[in-house]
Amino acid sequence: MSEKKPLILVTNDDGVDAKGIYVLSQAIREFGEVVVVAPDSARSGQSSAITPNKAMKLEKVYQEDNFSIYKTNGTPVDCIKLAMNTLLDRKPDLIVSGVNHGSNSAVCIIYSGTMGAVMEGCINNIDSIGFSFCDDKFESDFAEAENYIKRIVENILQNGLEKGVCLNVNIPHVPEMKGVKICRQANGYWTKEYEKRVDESGNEAFWLTGYFHNMEPDAEDTDEWALSQGYVSIVPCMIDMTAYKQIKRLSYLEEKLNFSELEINSSLPG
Amino acid sequence: MSEKKPLILVTNDDGVDAKGIYVLSQAIREFGEVVVVAPDSARSGQSSAITPNKAMKLEKVYQEDNFSIYKTNGTPVDCIKLAMNTLLDRKPDLIVSGVNHGSNSAVCIIYSGTMGAVMEGCINNIDSIGFSFCDDKFESDFAEAENYIKRIVENILQNGLEKGVCLNVNIPHVPEMKGVKICRQANGYWTKEYEKRVDESGNEAFWLTGYFHNMEPDAEDTDEWALSQGYVSIVPCMIDMTAYKQIKRLSYLEEKLNFSELEINSSLPG
Repeated sequence: MSEKKPLILVTNDDGVDAKGIYVLSQAIREFGEVVVVAPDSARSGQSSAITPNKAMKLEKVYQEDNFSIYKTNGTPVDCIKLAMNTLLDRKPDLIVSGVNHGSNSAVCIIYSGTMGAVMEGCINNIDSIGFSFCDDKFESDFAEAENYIKRIVENILQNGLEKGVCLNVNIPHVPEMKGVKICRQANGYWTKEYEKRVDESGNEAFWLTGYFHNMEPDAEDTDEWALSQGYVSIVPCMIDMTAYKQIKRLSYLEEKLNFSELEINSSLPG
Repeated sequence: MSEKKPLILVTNDDGVDAKGIYVLSQAIREFGEVVVVAPDSARSGQSSAITPNKAMKLEKVYQEDNFSIYKTNGTPVDCIKLAMNTLLDRKPDLIVSGVNHGSNSAVCIIYSGTMGAVMEGCINNIDSIGFSFCDDKFESDFAEAENYIKRIVENILQNGLEKGVCLNVNIPHVPEMKGVKICRQANGYWTKEYEKRVDESGNEAFWLTGYFHNMEPDAEDTDEWALSQGYVSIVPCMIDMTAYKQIKRLSYLEEKLNFSELEINSSLPG
């Protein structure tokens, strides 16, 4: 008997019918057995949201040799959890998420359902990669992106990632890509985030919109810069969010909030 | 004219009617003007989810001097965004979220709507703190927790946090708390995450449940350890998720994926 092929679990946040997940799952078929478990409809901006107190359903929609597609009524993280807990008979060798229709660079990683699924894989100690294409059209042309996706997946299957680390890959929408850059997450925030409109009942309501403000447009080590120059950006990300350098700085709180200090002192010997 | 009082924005993920947010907003009234903007119902496990393509509404439900309460139909992050973009006339001096009914220690920070709101504050460069109480009963007794909350808020209003850093505070449910510990996020994951049941239509469905598996129960610098010993755990967290140590390790990808290398080399002078 031959060795088992690598098992690759695929999800996204644009839903099972998006072109991006079709492109991704086809691009990687040459590397192993591919199982797609994706939301039944778009779940953009779902971050690492999970669904408590609701019946989660998993439905097979397609099957052929070494390739199957399932849809769920959950978030991207629910998809990973459902696949791992109720569907797969072994731990995946790799989780890939995307290709997202639209960028997930800089702080957008925090809101991204694509990256939520990737972090879920990482929590479960599975090499995980999120792919996003900086063009949100439904009918994006992924032809050149596909080439990069294949090579990144091939390399990570070969060399692996360190424990607790996953990848946020963003692919620029440019006529010709220049290669890849390993980057840090750019610092920025969103502004003018709502459009005020009056709804059908005459009440004031707000629709999410906004502009991303890059705080460091000239920093050549950031993902935003790499993308602006036509490079594919790869940010290695951690699920450990601890700000280690702050542990010492904040230790003053341990002293200030030791309410039992007096009692302890008064019971010290001699 | 006297100097303006600090403006403190309060939210949570258990909803505007939860006891925890009442306790939190009352506990901090002595420190400034308090504006509560919270979801109209429970939004647990919403992480940093946002709500695109839907009308967001903001409704005032209570007002007195230096204290007001609003509810929204959004997630905790939506609440922060709505408050900052459509309600407040100045930037808050502090954002506090909680008190969550249940722990948000270790990797649970990633799923937590309480902490999603805190990270949103941090992205916007506002000192932000999440408070969670390790007891998920609706009628928890927050009496001793309140004492710690007041002192932590007082100290952070006085001394501030570094840019890009926020706090994840978990309060143990024990007869007597021992003080606070500044910690790192414990490493662990969830297992056995679904209960399979047959729903009303006779179809198989899955309900989220599970057990947290702490990978390092003896590590005395983690939040899980501090809580197990009766300490309030404070983890300083970063919104920059970059795994800096991995940037060099992964630089091999830059070379392997430089598809235009040949062309570049052939155009080198002499």
